[in-house]
Amino acid sequence: MLGSSLVKNNPTLLVFVPLFYTVWSDSILTPSEVSTLEGFLNAQDWINEQEKKFLLSKIDPGHPPTIEELSSWKTAITQIINGSKNRETLVNLGIKLASLQGDGTISNTLEKIRPSLAKIETTLGLISHEAIFNFQGGHNTITSEQGTQHNFDVNELTKILDGDQADIIRKVKTLLSDPEFAYVDAGNLDLYRKQVLQWCKFLAAQGYGAMAYPKAFGGGDDMRAYFTIMETLSYHDLSLVVKFGVQFGLWGMSVYFLGTEKHHTKYLKDIGSLELPGCFAMTETNHGSNVKGIETTATYNHANKTFNIHTPNEFAQKEFIGNAACHGQMATVFAKLIIDDTDYGVSAFVVPLRDKKGKILSGVKIKDCGRKMGLNGVDNGVIAFDHVIIPKENMLDRFASVNEAGKFESPISSDNRRFFTMLGTLVGGRIGIPRSGNAASKTGLTIAIRYGDQRRQFGPEGGSEVPILNYRTHQRRLMPLLANTYALHFALQYLTNRFINRKEEEMQEIEALAAGLKSFATWNTTATLQECREACGGKGFLSENRIEILKNDTDIYTTFEGDNTVLMQLVAKSRLTEFRQEFANMNVFTILNYVADKAKTGITEMNPITVRNTDENHLLDPEFHLNAFKYRERAILTSAAKRLKRHIDSGMDSFDAFNVCQHHLVKTGFAFIERVILEKFIEQVEQTQNEGCKAVLKRLCNLFALWQINKNKGWYLEQGYMEGVKTKAIRKMINQLCWEIRQDAVPLTDAFNIPESCLAAPIARRS
Amino acid sequence: MLGSSLVKNNPTLLVFVPLFYTVWSDSILTPSEVSTLEGFLNAQDWINEQEKKFLLSKIDPGHPPTIEELSSWKTAITQIINGSKNRETLVNLGIKLASLQGDGTISNTLEKIRPSLAKIETTLGLISHEAIFNFQGGHNTITSEQGTQHNFDVNELTKILDGDQADIIRKVKTLLSDPEFAYVDAGNLDLYRKQVLQWCKFLAAQGYGAMAYPKAFGGGDDMRAYFTIMETLSYHDLSLVVKFGVQFGLWGMSVYFLGTEKHHTKYLKDIGSLELPGCFAMTETNHGSNVKGIETTATYNHANKTFNIHTPNEFAQKEFIGNAACHGQMATVFAKLIIDDTDYGVSAFVVPLRDKKGKILSGVKIKDCGRKMGLNGVDNGVIAFDHVIIPKENMLDRFASVNEAGKFESPISSDNRRFFTMLGTLVGGRIGIPRSGNAASKTGLTIAIRYGDQRRQFGPEGGSEVPILNYRTHQRRLMPLLANTYALHFALQYLTNRFINRKEEEMQEIEALAAGLKSFATWNTTATLQECREACGGKGFLSENRIEILKNDTDIYTTFEGDNTVLMQLVAKSRLTEFRQEFANMNVFTILNYVADKAKTGITEMNPITVRNTDENHLLDPEFHLNAFKYRERAILTSAAKRLKRHIDSGMDSFDAFNVCQHHLVKTGFAFIERVILEKFIEQVEQTQNEGCKAVLKRLCNLFALWQINKNKGWYLEQGYMEGVKTKAIRKMINQLCWEIRQDAVPLTDAFNIPESCLAAPIARRS
Repeated sequence: MLGSSLVKNNPTLLVFVPLFYTVWSDSILTPSEVSTLEGFLNAQDWINEQEKKFLLSKIDPGHPPTIEELSSWKTAITQIINGSKNRETLVNLGIKLASLQGDGTISNTLEKIRPSLAKIETTLGLISHEAIFNFQGGHNTITSEQGTQHNFDVNELTKILDGDQADIIRKVKTLLSDPEFAYVDAGNLDLYRKQVLQWCKFLAAQGYGAMAYPKAFGGGDDMRAYFTIMETLSYHDLSLVVKFGVQFGLWGMSVYFLGTEKHHTKYLKDIGSLELPGCFAMTETNHGSNVKGIETTATYNHANKTFNIHTPNEFAQKEFIGNAACHGQMATVFAKLIIDDTDYGVSAFVVPLRDKKGKILSGVKIKDCGRKMGLNGVDNGVIAFDHVIIPKENMLDRFASVNEAGKFESPISSDNRRFFTMLGTLVGGRIGIPRSGNAASKTGLTIAIRYGDQRRQFGPEGGSEVPILNYRTHQRRLMPLLANTYALHFALQYLTNRFINRKEEEMQEIEALAAGLKSFATWNTTATLQECREACGGKGFLSENRIEILKNDTDIYTTFEGDNTVLMQLVAKSRLTEFRQEFANMNVFTILNYVADKAKTGITEMNPITVRNTDENHLLDPEFHLNAFKYRERAILTSAAKRLKRHIDSGMDSFDAFNVCQHHLVKTGFAFIERVILEKFIEQVEQTQNEGCKAVLKRLCNLFALWQINKNKGWYLEQGYMEGVKTKAIRKMINQLCWEIRQDAVPLTDAFNIPESCLAAPIARRS
Repeated sequence: MLGSSLVKNNPTLLVFVPLFYTVWSDSILTPSEVSTLEGFLNAQDWINEQEKKFLLSKIDPGHPPTIEELSSWKTAITQIINGSKNRETLVNLGIKLASLQGDGTISNTLEKIRPSLAKIETTLGLISHEAIFNFQGGHNTITSEQGTQHNFDVNELTKILDGDQADIIRKVKTLLSDPEFAYVDAGNLDLYRKQVLQWCKFLAAQGYGAMAYPKAFGGGDDMRAYFTIMETLSYHDLSLVVKFGVQFGLWGMSVYFLGTEKHHTKYLKDIGSLELPGCFAMTETNHGSNVKGIETTATYNHANKTFNIHTPNEFAQKEFIGNAACHGQMATVFAKLIIDDTDYGVSAFVVPLRDKKGKILSGVKIKDCGRKMGLNGVDNGVIAFDHVIIPKENMLDRFASVNEAGKFESPISSDNRRFFTMLGTLVGGRIGIPRSGNAASKTGLTIAIRYGDQRRQFGPEGGSEVPILNYRTHQRRLMPLLANTYALHFALQYLTNRFINRKEEEMQEIEALAAGLKSFATWNTTATLQECREACGGKGFLSENRIEILKNDTDIYTTFEGDNTVLMQLVAKSRLTEFRQEFANMNVFTILNYVADKAKTGITEMNPITVRNTDENHLLDPEFHLNAFKYRERAILTSAAKRLKRHIDSGMDSFDAFNVCQHHLVKTGFAFIERVILEKFIEQVEQTQNEGCKAVLKRLCNLFALWQINKNKGWYLEQGYMEGVKTKAIRKMINQLCWEIRQDAVPLTDAFNIPESCLAAPIARRS
């Protein structure tokens, strides 16, 4: 077009070049675009018939311009753009182009047609704006320029995270960084399992295995440090963590908590040194969550004061038992205690499985569970007992025993209470596992966030490519999970403190806390590692980058130590019980109405101004967050209680009533635990002295709170607790917080201070 | 208490036995419970001081009753309950117990204290109701009695799913059931890869590999059957599917679609027979989603009419290339075409990698990607080219070529359009992958649902344990995913039909459909298999039960053939373009206001009655569902367009504007694709003749629709499209539908008709 003699005669025709280039360059010229342009050309009196025909030929879908022609158009436009400092429109560009070629006389014509040309450009919509930006080669954008900043002291934040455990953390990390702890190929089961056992022995040699046991039995008498060790090991191989937990936690702690001094004296030292590898044999093929239903029997024979441990059918085999397939020499076996044909419920017994040389003992059958989704360094097995005889003293007799007369005895008369008290002592597992899972989240996020900060893809036309962490969807994928991980860190510290300083009467509450945090944290780990995998694309799929291994190893965390869905119902039931106790002196109906009314009307934020308040200060106010969480917790609990009561009053079996409300109960559990997490996070922010750390923690806490509220916005809107204008403002604020936290994201993962040798992923390598 | 002389003298005291038993049996007696009971006892004039002291001693937290005492109380209560046909309260039970022991004269006293006793029972709340049920040993409940029913003809439903592809499906399934297709251990990379290649050869020998190629080149000229084969193979090993897809789809189809007759003649037959294994080398280390940015060069040398294929730096290596590490002899390599120092953008070239014996050719370097999260039967590799010279005819020259004069030529003059047209021909991969993913969902659901139907855990006290699929949370986990899988089956059939019968001008729409369905379906597969794993508990973690393998193999489906997040933005951009075209003759602002107003006010369901309508007929009306989906689609698209325009008008760079709206755009993509899926599902239900099948499909369609609406309820509430009373009714209806579909769940997975040898999971074995 530029070289045509028609254009030479009438340079005003050049005004169409930018428009024509734009419609041709991007996509197929659509019929409606053609007709718009045709209509326009037909209406112009300054174009003669020949020129019109020429112009129409340039927008004939059947005859696109040649490559050379398009290229010459682009060159002409780019020259104009590069000489201009203002933001241009296609029409402006066309006018400038025409003016340059023509003499001064054409400017009148150009100004006359400007409005109708502008209308065409508007009709083309976004495409024209994009085109303009695309002509400006190498320009920068806000998106391109975002990057990692250093707004706070990373070491200070690490100190806050580590607290008084910094010393043991440092020691464990130093050990893990030793070349002996180099990762091995997870494909070879045999080698992997041997390596993991060897690693456990190194740890035992440092006294880490016995850390929680009394000093009298070779231990460190430091339960808090034991949990810290579990957590810190979780930056490394998770098979190691689970093997460690099976040996020193499940096997050792069951002897410690369910046994009495004779057992402690006899076993604890060898357990702590790993001289005596053992198992925790509770789960059976047919009974996992429903422990009460296990069928293995321990039948007492008073004649020779022995128990006969027996697996009555194949579904009563002990299944998924860690340490069983290869290394376990003994096991704490949970079985129904039978005395004189009477079933006294579940008790625990120490049963030998193998001799010192590893030979399986007579009457014991062990099968290997084989390859699993993850944790392949742990030798899970299936155990069956064929009338194995053990001496009477092998009964772990803290909560139940057989007396000298051969009769059942227990300090707890209620069967139910005895059972739950026994299980309650094992609550430590529900602290260790979520702490391990949250550490795996930290590793996954460190890898994915470093990768997102370095990996560039797409960018403004002609500009450099942009780190993918600058994209909003990428930020929304990872920043809220980073906030969750921080929130859980502090909540799990709180849970640990409560457990360490527990009093008898707090046990129910601590058990509910542990069950709820275990569920929330491990589900969060699964979700986090899934996002991390996807956020790293194909790189995340390669085993060398470790996200897949972390994901596969921790996937079972949502199942073991209690299936999360079952646990959340336990939390809810515990809440219902507390609820009942709190108002024991009032009639239930009165209570329900009272609470409901109070929750609905007594709170300031339910007033018409607050439900629509979108002030930034309000949206970022921890008091608003906590009130919203508390309101939800209370309201859901109340409505669950009401619903259960209504169903039961109408004649429904309580089992059915609980089933009908099951989903509601799970939500009740969530609402409780989310409130606890937020409360502890807010407390942490408040007590943080260092200004930089305080500021970044506050942003994370805000994001945690608003993300949860946004997740439940349907519920808040249903309740009239917020109006749409407020939930929309919250959505916007979340985007803003993600955008801000992105700048701190790399330092925030640096503060986890995970040894580089543990991260190991090539994509997380510092460039 | 029963044996006390005080009670013998005053049997009325027995009225407390059920209350006392209940508070002791379940949990710790709380202080508030003690004070409630104390208060009551102190107020009774028919109890003397000695009796009062005795009764108080029975509720002293420091002195619980003995095991024998608790046991005798329980026996007494159980006898009463077993003799009663009515539903009892603890008070009733107490009164009956006392009446039995006493003479007729005590009944007056009992009736007098009944109201105040009842008040205590109410205060105890749920615990008392539960206790009553627990006394009734062996009772059945609604929850226990639910089970699998046979409400429709499974074979008929299979026929509907298979349609006119039944014959080829049957053939492929027969082949897969052959012992040659027994699964191998995924741990041994070497053996696994060899086995997968061998399987591919079996399939090629049946003519399945060449199914889509023209008959002239040894093919079956049946693209539809090719997709059916991909899908059916996905019931088996997914490494096989991907290897099959790489060879016959990516490698073969790139030659077919990007090449011209000379390439077809030379290569297609050998590709289809697997004589010539090859690769599709597009992705580079630094460029995955942003294909335009790849850096490999193909420099033309007119002197000897060759191309020089070169990897300029390590980040330009071809990465994740299937078939590269072991078996590929050639590759379609995407590279920037350089002629006379001018870059003509991305073109494709056939480049030899290995000789017939498998020896890597000079100038080619190949590295093994090693172990991956899944698909370990596929030999992915990294390829680098060091100035590899190939003849001119190796350029796949359908869309771009070098002419005899050594100049660039193309039938498509716009670089952009040429690039997207070239990629557009490869859209088949975005049909094959979601169909494969959905087949994996079917396998996962078949395993998890069969397991949930057989696995029993917990139950009413004394009754038998209940299949876990009878629990509401379990139903809510799996039934909506079953509905999604059915919905996607029909939507993917529709997509396939559109692709098979495509016209040039429909390509943009079909590409958007494929991108959207690929994303929705593969994310759904990831979510489904995650739920299936958790729903099968520890059993789901064992490799033998195959859910983990399905999950790990398909996890990358959300990344390859286009990262889902990026694809959903493409869908949205395509929708914005259509939006623009549809209204090309109107001013953009007018359009936006017009559409927004129309969407908001022109639709009947926005009236005050409809937004609150909770009638069952309305909630299950497909018209209501479709209107809600369409409203959402339109409103989100409109608001995205408005937002983009507002930002750009305010001076924001379009790149930034798109980034700011990125999350909104992803939602726009979702809303579009969800509407398409629903529309096709509704059409399927309408055209189903068989009454039983129609009914069950309708329930699934209802669940699909309401589940999506519920997922987006926050948005609908924000918009005022529904009120809380309606969203609550929808939640209830979802529970109801899950409950109903549970009864059809096993037959619904039977209708997938997956060969038992493919399922293979021990937990899915028919008992």
